[in-house]
Amino acid sequence: MSTPLRVAVVGAKGRIGSEAVRAVEAAEDLELVAALGRGDRLETLVETGAQVVVELTHPDAVMRNLEFCTAQGIHAVVGTTGWTEERLAQLETWLAASTGTGVLIAPNFSIGAILTMRFAQQAAKFFESVEVIELHHTKKADAPSGTATRTAQLIAAARAEAGLPRQDDPTTHGLPGARGADVDGVPVHAVRLRGLLAHQEVLFGGEGETLTIRHDSLHHSSFMPGILTGVRRVVDVPGLTFGLEKFLFEGE
Amino acid sequence: MSTPLRVAVVGAKGRIGSEAVRAVEAAEDLELVAALGRGDRLETLVETGAQVVVELTHPDAVMRNLEFCTAQGIHAVVGTTGWTEERLAQLETWLAASTGTGVLIAPNFSIGAILTMRFAQQAAKFFESVEVIELHHTKKADAPSGTATRTAQLIAAARAEAGLPRQDDPTTHGLPGARGADVDGVPVHAVRLRGLLAHQEVLFGGEGETLTIRHDSLHHSSFMPGILTGVRRVVDVPGLTFGLEKFLFEGE
Amino acid sequence: MSTPLRVAVVGAKGRIGSEAVRAVEAAEDLELVAALGRGDRLETLVETGAQVVVELTHPDAVMRNLEFCTAQGIHAVVGTTGWTEERLAQLETWLAASTGTGVLIAPNFSIGAILTMRFAQQAAKFFESVEVIELHHTKKADAPSGTATRTAQLIAAARAEAGLPRQDDPTTHGLPGARGADVDGVPVHAVRLRGLLAHQEVLFGGEGETLTIRHDSLHHSSFMPGILTGVRRVVDVPGLTFGLEKFLFEGE
Amino acid sequence: MSTPLRVAVVGAKGRIGSEAVRAVEAAEDLELVAALGRGDRLETLVETGAQVVVELTHPDAVMRNLEFCTAQGIHAVVGTTGWTEERLAQLETWLAASTGTGVLIAPNFSIGAILTMRFAQQAAKFFESVEVIELHHTKKADAPSGTATRTAQLIAAARAEAGLPRQDDPTTHGLPGARGADVDGVPVHAVRLRGLLAHQEVLFGGEGETLTIRHDSLHHSSFMPGILTGVRRVVDVPGLTFGLEKFLFEGE
Repeated sequence: MSTPLRVAVVGAKGRIGSEAVRAVEAAEDLELVAALGRGDRLETLVETGAQVVVELTHPDAVMRNLEFCTAQGIHAVVGTTGWTEERLAQLETWLAASTGTGVLIAPNFSIGAILTMRFAQQAAKFFESVEVIELHHTKKADAPSGTATRTAQLIAAARAEAGLPRQDDPTTHGLPGARGADVDGVPVHAVRLRGLLAHQEVLFGGEGETLTIRHDSLHHSSFMPGILTGVRRVVDVPGLTFGLEKFLFEGE
Repeated sequence: MSTPLRVAVVGAKGRIGSEAVRAVEAAEDLELVAALGRGDRLETLVETGAQVVVELTHPDAVMRNLEFCTAQGIHAVVGTTGWTEERLAQLETWLAASTGTGVLIAPNFSIGAILTMRFAQQAAKFFESVEVIELHHTKKADAPSGTATRTAQLIAAARAEAGLPRQDDPTTHGLPGARGADVDGVPVHAVRLRGLLAHQEVLFGGEGETLTIRHDSLHHSSFMPGILTGVRRVVDVPGLTFGLEKFLFEGE
Repeated sequence: MSTPLRVAVVGAKGRIGSEAVRAVEAAEDLELVAALGRGDRLETLVETGAQVVVELTHPDAVMRNLEFCTAQGIHAVVGTTGWTEERLAQLETWLAASTGTGVLIAPNFSIGAILTMRFAQQAAKFFESVEVIELHHTKKADAPSGTATRTAQLIAAARAEAGLPRQDDPTTHGLPGARGADVDGVPVHAVRLRGLLAHQEVLFGGEGETLTIRHDSLHHSSFMPGILTGVRRVVDVPGLTFGLEKFLFEGE
Repeated sequence: MSTPLRVAVVGAKGRIGSEAVRAVEAAEDLELVAALGRGDRLETLVETGAQVVVELTHPDAVMRNLEFCTAQGIHAVVGTTGWTEERLAQLETWLAASTGTGVLIAPNFSIGAILTMRFAQQAAKFFESVEVIELHHTKKADAPSGTATRTAQLIAAARAEAGLPRQDDPTTHGLPGARGADVDGVPVHAVRLRGLLAHQEVLFGGEGETLTIRHDSLHHSSFMPGILTGVRRVVDVPGLTFGLEKFLFEGE
């Protein structure tokens, strides 16, 4: 077996961060060399010889952290959100000056969620009808979820590309809201239920049949396989990669 | 085996009516003696010795048909809708003058739909959260369905009786309609999908667990077992019975 | 508000026990007065004035603990398994000598699981077909689960009582095991899947329709509402109560 | 609009055949020129100028029908089963002698079923666990279904190719059959329920999440969109094509 990859977690005290610490420790081909929280010195990353940083902090901190990492030639796998065109351009500049360094930014590390979106895109052109139902815990403030909105947008784009017409809504009378939110012509329904975590169903309907793709996230650990896949691959992919799917489906 | 019960179907040409004709013919303990369509003479019911009429016509015709049946002492199982307080009172008058005659009016003959409502009512007081999703074919003009609305009302009443508070909606931002229609505080979502017929899910959520009751109606024949149960029982229950559940759960 | 009920947890270090400690602490009408682990003195229960003990230990320890509690007039809610006729008889003897003391033994504290079994029993007589699918995590050693086996037995008994015939299996050729395990004539299928916790579906089928009752347990905290209901009610029910359903559905 | 394609159905009296007649009649770009049943003369196909034949007969008749069609330069879309290496070789010989003629043989014309298999193959390498549940009506003689067996085989092959180990079964005690049939290491469960038609679920499980792909066939008309796609495409694809997926995903 080869030498383990030296990995640091920045943002190690948060819910996902602490899961990431455990996941890196548990992986035989990875070695956890640092777990930094708010206020800890970034220099520790250099002193411990970290080869890859898992960045799970906050939009306020992520740019400073990535400036440091790219300057030091440390690869990064980034789960922090809040990316804008401007921020991405800045990051590209830093990467251009750091030959061989790779950064992966992923809006979603759940492989199940990524596959759901991919399959929904592929199936879209074959079915007359499609709707999305997302179901989450009762602390969620936005409805529909970002993932459901993104899924509906991808479906709508695939329908448009295939020349499918906009779906008719047969409803002539009823109650407001019953038919869900309209995301580019795809109805999206949001359920909030105590006991749930994060779940999504994409329902396609055609003549005499339906196809349902359902993703259930039952624990926050569901992000870990995707983060570890990112860590293992980013060292071989210099420059900026946006979206874990680039690593999952390469060569297809 | 005893003599078969003599049954007539009125409204025998419609989609449900023609299924009812087939179902009566197929039942060993029933004999189909007449199948009347629009314009056929009601006197045929007397001439053929019908003991029970299955009435599946139209709100415009049902009162005339039931006046005739009750006057002749013929029992009736009625699927036609459009019942008002006034119409029910009129029917009660006719029944009072026809000792021993029974009429069953049922808004829903699907045993699965009736059980779904019953279980939803029973479960309501045990869970913090509840939402209803109904899914139908793409010709359905009303959203949500009458059954989903009735289910949500029954749940809301059971919650109120148990002293449960109104459900909080955690949503602070999002798209209009995402959280469904509000029926007495219960969110109801309506999906319209090619390939479906009539389906309903009631989702309950509590600490760490969910309970889902789902009814799928895949064919119009799903009303037949309920209609036949009504036919067999109505002969022993004089007067007006509203709701098939009265026959399904008697003695409980 | 009245004085909080004084509650102790025995077996407080286990997975369910530590959840119970948290749940009692979080309940406004309950006060946690002791949390005992292996080797701790039972006398602490008397010294802290515990009124109810939540017993979540092991078949090896439960009898000694209950002998102590009943002798001291402390009520008990028991989740420990391994009950035999002989053990129950011994417990009845202790309770007979301790006027006013109540003990609740519950094989399952999940309200969703209990309702699933109850609804399955109620629905059984109305459907020609029924099968059970249980789905669990990949550490589960028994298949099918005890709950699924019990559910199938209850369904089979309800079918027999209603005079329903045994279900025909149409299979004439295929692979061994495809049609599941036979529990009193009800096929039971066991799925083992990484990512799941404990889930069960009961599927009923009749002419043109199906009814599905599904319970999903996503977190061990799902037992807490049932345990707390037991704690609050056991103080008013002297003697032995077997099954939480006795407290959930009383008066029905 | 261009001239409609001239289509004949052979085996037009069967359940699927009569649906195909209706579907061709309803399609604006297709013209039904013949609908042949058992005993009808094949020469009618030539006399009516059929360009494409939809062959839905029986293994006893299909070879004779295809010999005639290929000799006459009539394209064919074939749903009849019973193909062997020998039969396929014979058909290839006939096609070699009929330049420009195309024949599509498809074991499954349901687009939902084909997508389910495709997505299951694609997802297989990303998940530790996978099981298949198929659910059918109570007249089905084989268990598991051919589609479920094929799906499990495709999943097993994809796992092997990705170097995934065989799934461990954690079961140490239980009832025979509970864990389903073993198809190349993938457990397959077969449910038989009155009211169902043909349904299949593929369940994948990984750390903290599951992905479910479910296909519901609610009516035999579900084969029609696939058959019509075959009819429209086969005229442009000379030679033998096996599997509708070749036409659905071409260019990907």
